[in-house]
Amino acid sequence: MAYTAKIKVTLRQSILDVQGKAVEHALLNLGYGSVGSARIGKYIEVSINEDDALAAERICNEICLKLLSNPVMENYSFELEKA
Amino acid sequence: MAYTAKIKVTLRQSILDVQGKAVEHALLNLGYGSVGSARIGKYIEVSINEDDALAAERICNEICLKLLSNPVMENYSFELEKA
Repeated sequence: MAYTAKIKVTLRQSILDVQGKAVEHALLNLGYGSVGSARIGKYIEVSINEDDALAAERICNEICLKLLSNPVMENYSFELEKA
Repeated sequence: MAYTAKIKVTLRQSILDVQGKAVEHALLNLGYGSVGSARIGKYIEVSINEDDALAAERICNEICLKLLSNPVMENYSFELEKA
């Protein structure tokens, strides 16, 4: 059984998101006045070949902490789906 | 009423994802043999100040096509949530 982990990595709320600010300004300049804040993160899809959902979840947490996110500046969340 | 659009922008399946390949190799080198493919995209949260859900959806589609994604190489999907 394989699982697909859909991972979102976002900057912590207290960290200034310059890329998001650039998108906000660009949207204002394009005439979208109703768009407020924008924040940019990463979206990662990883397939995990494990039979056990708990094992897949443990692996997903580990790779998020070790490789995919910077825990000092970023939060992550994920959903596991059977593939 | 404001809406929060949670937008995922992913590379089309036919496009080589070099960043994803790098993550796959890194995970293998870290000893995660059960991890198969990895694909990397963008995750964007935008707040849209519109009363009407349909108007918010229209705006979200427009900004995805015009600014947030490159329709030639990328797909996008989004969820609208009442904020």
